[in-house]
Amino acid sequence: MSRVYLDWNATAPLRPEAREAMLAATEIVGNPSSVHAEGRAAKSALERAREEIAVALGAEGTDVIFTSGATEAAALALQGRGLACSPVEHAAVLAWCEAALQTDPAGRVSVPDPGRATLQLANAETGVIQDLPQGLAVSDLTQAFGKIPFAFNWLGIEAGFVSAHKLGGPRGIGALVVRRGTEVEARIKGGGQEQGRRAGTENLIGIMGFAAAAKAAQNDLDQGIGEKVSQLRDSLMATLESQTEMVTFPGREARRLPNTLSILTPGWRGETQVMQMDLAGFAVSAGSACSSGKVRPSSVLTAMGIAEEWAGDAIRVSIGPATEPRDVMRFADAWLAAHGRWRQRNDGRATAGKV
Amino acid sequence: MSRVYLDWNATAPLRPEAREAMLAATEIVGNPSSVHAEGRAAKSALERAREEIAVALGAEGTDVIFTSGATEAAALALQGRGLACSPVEHAAVLAWCEAALQTDPAGRVSVPDPGRATLQLANAETGVIQDLPQGLAVSDLTQAFGKIPFAFNWLGIEAGFVSAHKLGGPRGIGALVVRRGTEVEARIKGGGQEQGRRAGTENLIGIMGFAAAAKAAQNDLDQGIGEKVSQLRDSLMATLESQTEMVTFPGREARRLPNTLSILTPGWRGETQVMQMDLAGFAVSAGSACSSGKVRPSSVLTAMGIAEEWAGDAIRVSIGPATEPRDVMRFADAWLAAHGRWRQRNDGRATAGKV
Repeated sequence: MSRVYLDWNATAPLRPEAREAMLAATEIVGNPSSVHAEGRAAKSALERAREEIAVALGAEGTDVIFTSGATEAAALALQGRGLACSPVEHAAVLAWCEAALQTDPAGRVSVPDPGRATLQLANAETGVIQDLPQGLAVSDLTQAFGKIPFAFNWLGIEAGFVSAHKLGGPRGIGALVVRRGTEVEARIKGGGQEQGRRAGTENLIGIMGFAAAAKAAQNDLDQGIGEKVSQLRDSLMATLESQTEMVTFPGREARRLPNTLSILTPGWRGETQVMQMDLAGFAVSAGSACSSGKVRPSSVLTAMGIAEEWAGDAIRVSIGPATEPRDVMRFADAWLAAHGRWRQRNDGRATAGKV
Repeated sequence: MSRVYLDWNATAPLRPEAREAMLAATEIVGNPSSVHAEGRAAKSALERAREEIAVALGAEGTDVIFTSGATEAAALALQGRGLACSPVEHAAVLAWCEAALQTDPAGRVSVPDPGRATLQLANAETGVIQDLPQGLAVSDLTQAFGKIPFAFNWLGIEAGFVSAHKLGGPRGIGALVVRRGTEVEARIKGGGQEQGRRAGTENLIGIMGFAAAAKAAQNDLDQGIGEKVSQLRDSLMATLESQTEMVTFPGREARRLPNTLSILTPGWRGETQVMQMDLAGFAVSAGSACSSGKVRPSSVLTAMGIAEEWAGDAIRVSIGPATEPRDVMRFADAWLAAHGRWRQRNDGRATAGKV
């Protein structure tokens, strides 16, 4: 039986539109900084892609600064600014901010001073969507972009950043978005690219793949993909809930991304579940990919008030536009079977302990 | 008539092997940091590519740290170290070093204290190859990699960096190479990738393209491509020299890359030549691509003792394995014709001035 990929928040499969655009990009010979016809053709393709991404982001008239991904864009936006943040942020954000903001049990973050804070639009593990306060300094839009409709220009934020591979573009390309003319001090220097804010020959193939993927994701959203995806996610949640006890779904009280389900089974390690599901043919994750491999409680879940001892007992199922109802039902069956076996062992041990 | 691309040092056309490897990479779904089968498959492809690049570089047993290109790798290797360098370095290096080292008229740099210096292996504009001193702290290997045979492990240097797109890989991917276990402080943080030295989901498609291109370039070198290319370059130089006066070829007294020819015509602006050649169907450059567009004398040429007033009067012709003799001969004809017209105008003006 073929494998089922349910880890779209770690990285989404490349969209066919992105693949096609990247193939076309391989034919473009020039360096966008060169002044000859080949260079100008490359530059023109680069600027077209930039404009397409701005349109998909609802960020027309802003500056889209290409980076090697959201992690680099986060550093460019945040380093040296000492902004406040919540522990629900991604590690690439936490590296540069003070994790002092309060998070409620539903996963919603309070931001007393938006101009001195950074707050994600959506969480990678729980899918919780934040109401971004007006005047927010920086927002990590990575998980939200392509999954829910929003317009950068209506968010009321100063800067945001995104990544291509979360919405079906290639890995290794992202962007920082700022209001036109905002001063951004380059961290990678020695070239005039990106208006002097980010030196280095542009990853044109990746950028063209990013633009095509962003456009395709936006089309999907316009066609109502969000509803289809959330129905699937909700049916999975309902199935698991009806056939288990003690299992919870962190973030369910908040507005969430349509594709994300965090499943917490107190006492059953997330890593163990990921391995068992992997053997059964399903790719899911415990925590975000970047911190996976490290066995430690999720700072997202502890920030929501979940006890340390249970905060390592969640898995994340994240689906996408190509996920089929039968994939999700097969996963539910496999997970419920494993859950039943775990309960049996657990009851056995508990009984043995009592003897 | 089809255009002729003679600007390979700015960026080389994508090799078919790289294109094929990138196509294969588009099928790899997982995030290399994920622990499930899809993630492990991505990780395994990533590590195979890393090993192939190490082999092509003669850097077996070292640490190859992937970056978004040579510019980022230069920052990672150089920032905050205050190393000495020569003005012949690329702008991405000059951004982080003290341009205090002496350069002789042939373009060779003296390095009194190698442990506190950075020196390129080959120059982008003139092709001049340096004898790297033992114990050199950092070397920019970008223009040399894939054009001349060398082994990192025999260079006697502590660190070097390279870029994919100069040898027929994609733009936007490069690497820093260091002796195994060397401490490298991450500049982009918030993820455990690249042994904690460079956070961010890896550009797997770019990396696999890089590995395939590096391998193909190495094969070309093994087959003696260097001699074929240098014969072509030398025949161009001989043709231009025999039919002009006052034209010089900076760096010709030194050992040079086989593919690079700097052509200096005192009084005839490089930018003007580039535009005239572009209109005639040829892509060449004045200076390196990253600083092109800016009309100013080349710091490479002034470091070699060429007067400021003439240091803006050079163009660079850089060819590659796919360049045909007829392409070079067509260029020679077109350039000599333009040169003749310039001389006529010039003589006319001089005469007019005297009247």
